[in-house]
This record gives sequence, C-alpha cells and structure tokens, in this order.
Amino acid sequence: MMRAVDIIRKKRDAAELTSEEIAFLIQGATNGSVLDYQLAAFLMAVVWRGMTPAETAALTEAMLRSGQVLDLSALRGSKVDKHSTGGVGDKTSLIVAPVVAAAGLDVPLGRKRVYVPMISGRGLGHTGGTLDKLESIPGFNVNLSLGAFRGVLEKTGCALMGQTPEIAPADKKLYALRDVTATVESPFLICASIMSKKLAEGIDSLVLDVKTGDGAFMKKQAGAEQLAQLMVDTGTRVGKRVVALITDMDQPLGRKIGNALEVDECLDVLHGGGPSDLRELCVELAAWMFTLGDRVANLDEGRALAQEMIASGRARDTFREIIRMQGGDPAAVDDPGRLPQARNRAKLKSPRGGFVASIRCEQMGVASMLLGGGRERKEDLIDSAVGLVIERKVGEAVEAEGTLCTVHYNSDARLAEAMALLSNSFVIGDTAPKPAPLVRKVLGAS
Amino acid sequence: MMRAVDIIRKKRDAAELTSEEIAFLIQGATNGSVLDYQLAAFLMAVVWRGMTPAETAALTEAMLRSGQVLDLSALRGSKVDKHSTGGVGDKTSLIVAPVVAAAGLDVPLGRKRVYVPMISGRGLGHTGGTLDKLESIPGFNVNLSLGAFRGVLEKTGCALMGQTPEIAPADKKLYALRDVTATVESPFLICASIMSKKLAEGIDSLVLDVKTGDGAFMKKQAGAEQLAQLMVDTGTRVGKRVVALITDMDQPLGRKIGNALEVDECLDVLHGGGPSDLRELCVELAAWMFTLGDRVANLDEGRALAQEMIASGRARDTFREIIRMQGGDPAAVDDPGRLPQARNRAKLKSPRGGFVASIRCEQMGVASMLLGGGRERKEDLIDSAVGLVIERKVGEAVEAEGTLCTVHYNSDARLAEAMALLSNSFVIGDTAPKPAPLVRKVLGAS
Repeated sequence: MMRAVDIIRKKRDAAELTSEEIAFLIQGATNGSVLDYQLAAFLMAVVWRGMTPAETAALTEAMLRSGQVLDLSALRGSKVDKHSTGGVGDKTSLIVAPVVAAAGLDVPLGRKRVYVPMISGRGLGHTGGTLDKLESIPGFNVNLSLGAFRGVLEKTGCALMGQTPEIAPADKKLYALRDVTATVESPFLICASIMSKKLAEGIDSLVLDVKTGDGAFMKKQAGAEQLAQLMVDTGTRVGKRVVALITDMDQPLGRKIGNALEVDECLDVLHGGGPSDLRELCVELAAWMFTLGDRVANLDEGRALAQEMIASGRARDTFREIIRMQGGDPAAVDDPGRLPQARNRAKLKSPRGGFVASIRCEQMGVASMLLGGGRERKEDLIDSAVGLVIERKVGEAVEAEGTLCTVHYNSDARLAEAMALLSNSFVIGDTAPKPAPLVRKVLGAS
Repeated sequence: MMRAVDIIRKKRDAAELTSEEIAFLIQGATNGSVLDYQLAAFLMAVVWRGMTPAETAALTEAMLRSGQVLDLSALRGSKVDKHSTGGVGDKTSLIVAPVVAAAGLDVPLGRKRVYVPMISGRGLGHTGGTLDKLESIPGFNVNLSLGAFRGVLEKTGCALMGQTPEIAPADKKLYALRDVTATVESPFLICASIMSKKLAEGIDSLVLDVKTGDGAFMKKQAGAEQLAQLMVDTGTRVGKRVVALITDMDQPLGRKIGNALEVDECLDVLHGGGPSDLRELCVELAAWMFTLGDRVANLDEGRALAQEMIASGRARDTFREIIRMQGGDPAAVDDPGRLPQARNRAKLKSPRGGFVASIRCEQMGVASMLLGGGRERKEDLIDSAVGLVIERKVGEAVEAEGTLCTVHYNSDARLAEAMALLSNSFVIGDTAPKPAPLVRKVLGAS
C-alpha cells in the first residue's frame, strides 16, 4: 500500500518519484486523504530537491486530472491560449485574444481557425490580473459556467473567464498551502501550477510570455529561462505545441498601470494607436498563436495577419462582441469615458532634466497597488479607476519639473503612500540608455 | 509582527534564525497559532538546511520551556540522568539508576549525593524502551504524577517514570508531525527532542549513551558522533555538564532481549553476575554519572564505587525499594520467577560448527518485536514475557547443531515469523573475530 510518508521520504532523499506516486499524492490532496502537513513537507522537499522533467510532467498531469478538462474537440480548428507569468502594465491578453479570434472568419483553405479559450487569474501584490482589468468594463462577467464559456468561445472565437472550482482543484489546494509555507518559489511547482490550469482549457498549443526583470517574479533572465524551458518541456511531453517568449519587464509594459487605465490603453491599440512596446509585443504573441495554431504558414505571415486584424478594426469588433456576450457595456470600446474614472490627478515631477535611465518597475506596481488598484492580500477589494500613467519611459528626455508620471487617485492618504514610493522610482541620467530588446529570447520554437 | 511563513522562508534560504524566531514557532506549535502544515514545512527545511549550534540550543530551550521544568533545587546534591539513543537488549537504565542512587547514603565530606530523576520512553520498532521493561515487573507503575515522582526520588535517590503531558508538550507535537512527514532523521531535531525532555527533568548533568552499529538508529559511527557532539554542545550551551559515550550496538547488549527477560538479566547483574559486556557498560555509565555529579574525584573512583554498590547488594536493595514505592512487587528482585514467563521455548540451532562472526543486531530486535515483545506501531500492545536469549555471542565457539539462541514465545504463528528472521541473523565463521571495544569514544569529557 502506498503511504504519503514514504513518498515524502523518497523525495527528501532525492530519488525520482514514479507517476503513480505523484498521482497518489495529488489525488490525496484533492480528496483529503493526504493531510495538509504531509503536503507541506512534500512541497518543501520539492523546493529542496527539484523535480525531473518526467516528475514535473507527472505532477502537471495529476493536477490537471484532479478536475474537469474542457473537451473542445467539437470546435473545428485549433485551440490556442497565451499565458503571461505576470508583470506591471502587462495587459496583452485583452488585445491578443480578440486579435487572434478575429482572424477566424475567413480562414484560407488548408489553414485552421484559431480559438482562444482563456482562463485567467487575478492580480496579487505588484502585478495585475486579466480578470480585474476585464471587470473594470461595466457589467463584464468573468464568472461564467463552463457551458456559457463554451458558448461565447464558439460564437466569437474567444472567451475570457476566471478559474472555476471544477478546474484543477488540486492546484487551488496546493497553491493555498504554498502561500503560507514559503514553498511558492520552486520553478517545478510554478510550472505544474501554470501548465495544469492551462492544459485544462482543452488547448492544443500554448504561447508563454515569461517575464524577466525588476517587475517580474523572475528578476534574473536565467531563472525565467529555466522556468520557460520547464514549461515548454512539460507541455511537449503531454503532446502540446508550446513556445515561450522571454520578454522584458525591467520597465512597465505600455504607459498605463491600473485596471480601467489598462483597458483604456488596450482600446488605444485596438483602435490602431497605443504605445509601441505594447503593440509590438501583442503582434509577436498573436503571430506565435497563429503559427502554432496553423492559421498561417510562418511567423511573418502571423505578424501581418495580427496587424491586419488591428488595422481593419476587426479585432476591435470582436472585442466588442465578447464584451456584449459576457454582459459588459460594448459602447465602452468606442467611448473609454464609460470606464471608471478616478476623481483626482497628481503629477510626479522630475527633480532634474535629462533622460529616464531606468524605472523601478516593481515599485511602480506596488505604488499602483497602494493607490487601491491591486491587492496586498487575496481578500482585498480593489479600485478599478486608480493607477498610473507614465509620461516618460526609459530613454525618453525630460526637463526639470517635467512630468514623469500622472497619478490617478481617489484617496489623499493612499496618494501619499504611493508618492513616497514613486518619488524614487524614476532614475534620471545625463544620456539615454541603449534601448533593450522587448523579446529577449524564444524557447521551444522548432 | 512575526509571521511563521517568513521564518520558514528564512530557514529555507539557509539564513540563521534568531532565538526569538525559534521561540515564536515553538510557542505557536504549543498553543496552535502556528499551523501543522507550517511546522511540517519548517521541519523539512531544517532537515534540508540543518541548524547552527545556537539555533539547536534555542530550539531545545524553546521546546523545554513549552512545558513544566522540574525544580529539584530543594534536593541537596547533584541531579544526574543518563540517556541512551536506543538499541537491542539495551537495559542499562534499570541497573545504572539504582547503582548511582544507592551511593547516596554515605557521601564523604566535600562530595555530593547524586539523585537520578529518570523520565524514559517506550520501545518502537526494533528497539526496546525502559518503561516497557519496568512494566513487566508485576504492579510497577510508571505513570506517576510529578509530585509522586519527586517523592520516590527524594526517598530512594531515584525515580523512573514516563513522559507526562506537562513535560515538553512542543516535542510531543513536533514528534507526531515528524513521524508522518519523513522529518525524523535530522540530527538537529533529534538532539532538540532528546535534550528538551532530559533538561526538563531539572538535572545538572547528563551522561549520553549514543549507540552506533547495525542495531542502532545511527548505523555509522560518524553519524553517532555528530549527534553526540550536537547534544554535548547543546547541553553545555545551556549550562549543563554533558558527556557522551559512543558505544557498540553491532550486537545486542547482554544476552537477553524482551521485556521480562531483560529485567531478569538486570537482576543477574545486581546480584553480582550477568553478562560481562552489560556489567562493564553499566559500570562505565555509573562512573561517569558519579564523576559529573561530584560524588567522586575521578572516573576510576567512580568505577570502584559502582562495583562496590553491586557487590555489596546496596544497588539491589535500592532497586527493591524503588519497585516497592512505585507499586511493583519487590519480591521479584530475589525471585525472578515472579516475572512473566512465556509458555514455550524453541531453539535456533547452528547449521555448522565455528565461531559467531557477527550477529545481525537490528534483525534480532525485529524478531523480538515480531514475537510480540515490541511495537510495530505506537498503539500496539506488547507481550512482556516473550523474547530471545542469545546462547552464543560474537566471538564465541559453537558446534554444528549447537544452540545459538533460545526463543521464548507464546504464539506458534509469531514464532514462525521470528524464526524466519533469526535463521540468518547469526553469521558463523571459521575463526573468532577480534573483539570490538564496547565504548568506542567519549565526547565532552574535559
């Protein structure tokens, strides 16, 4: 008879677990037969000893199978999702999902329509979450049943919702434990957590946006690459096409941080404008989704198709339709004034003239959280309207007393807390630094 | 505000914890404010990262202070205990305690009486426990209140009892968790567990008998020495005199294994007979206790005093008195036939003539457990009467078909299980191996 204590001991002693042993633990975590303290000891042993590729894949599969897996085989076409490891101002999902879905109506012969079944998360700490951003659109409902989710997906080519209790319940259980036992920071556990939820969406392919830099969980590129490679390997082992882009998070993506402000910036992009870094990354991600999903023959075709979906307004139309079907106010797409607005504005001035040498990206995320735009703890309520608009990004010139950042706020006390952080978040130098590439590396592209 | 998760993270990242942080965790373990899964993750992090001497001492003190500490300052004299890490046939406590206590009546000027307040444990797995052995004496009560314990101690110079809920409750909690989370085998946790309970006895000095060899928890001498040094350092840090003897457990100590059989063998020694290895080790341990407790000027005086206590019958008289005061049948001391007797005997015969080259010591312990003499799980009941009598120890000659071991048993089915193990427990060679020293090393003697 298998016993949890023996499996923990085996991992403690750095032996490789069988997939049956891993499945035993995860089933036990799900049905309560393996106790929380045994799981906690196991998790710490994994932080210590790591996992082999086979173990990581087995853990991912066991977590995936702890709940429902969407069966989207009735939808003719590819099902491709994109996942970001999280950052500051990282709002690409709201653009990429409608861009990819919009290309589903006139698919050439021999190519496939790409569906985007996207199950997302909420923000925590300095990073934002797709669900929080979507909920700043008046009426938008992210709490769909799996049936309703499927309906929106079928109709528009995309649907956006939150985790349901049916999806990977073992991940919920383990994540709650990891959070209070200092066992979050294991790339193997992070990989299994992300991949089990994503694979439960019933997808064929996945594009990963693994952030690295000051505003990312993985500050060092080596750590980001390790995690990316793990996720690529794990996905490949279970028969999926997976690509990971290692992308820059040394400064916020785009210029806006905060839920409604970020939706506003996404609408700018969908209207053909918006900041160039955000536009560029969205095009890259969509191009990879088109490529993995066999919608196009190569990446360049994918980029062109993504740009066309934006330029033609079709991505915007699709986004409007998604909003409408998920209970939101579709008029907000063309009138961002319908999004929540903060009552007050304050300006962060530059103490001197020069160029922005760097931005302390994590601090910017924390400042937005302190304004009320994010959560310190999971149970905190958030204020959709508040946030930051960066007036000068890295490399841009600023005069003495020029505005670096505009703060949208609703509370003077919170403004003061945020300003204390913001006041040293911009480093001003005498010359413009060399521009850093946005996409630093691509892993898993064959 | 201190948070358990931060302390776990600190240990995970190999930083040294402060004594306040360790006290926070242990108080939390005791009052339930730190949750079991957090303790489990912490314990695994300790197995991984180890502890510094300061951390180990802080953990020991925090566990010690989680409950009552006996205040024996009213007793004029030294309070000295002895603790063994456990082995097969290891019955020295029943001899050493009355030997040392017996020397309390005619203490020369300038010397101190030595009291022995001994709180002991039960057997588990292949090792026996002092409490189980004592309970094979009809009527003997090990479940004393702390008040009654003190009364016996004051009167006879010694008292023997089990753990009470008041003593080191944090250790009980942690031990139960370690048992099911594969975190037992950390020398730091073992050290803190042993030392916290022993120091709660209100002792000044402690003699440790750290077993090494096939029948010990520490199979390798290096591991035994590491644990011994940790315990010596920890005890010294909290102001106690501590000495550790590293002693042989490559074969059972003495010739008898099993609860009543071991009491019988102790009575042999207290009557001036018994096997030489058992007698020798008891004299060494008692001599160290006399020395640390300032009853004698040096170890040789201690040895002579121990031998005198046996030869004069005073140790036997003291043991009789302890038994009487703790509710047992004092007549058993002079009539071992009053101890429980197994109904049947079986002989293990040697397949060939030669010399006993080695004995698989752990297997012998397991065989005794299988007969019913020990516990596979904590909740198992035991049979005091059953056990093994070794007729040929390592180095002794045996003829073909000569008896190696006599099995005392009450169940044919259990006999068969034990015999299957015993049949390959004796290795017979052509020549006698070199005798191995019983005491391999002494640590902490200044």
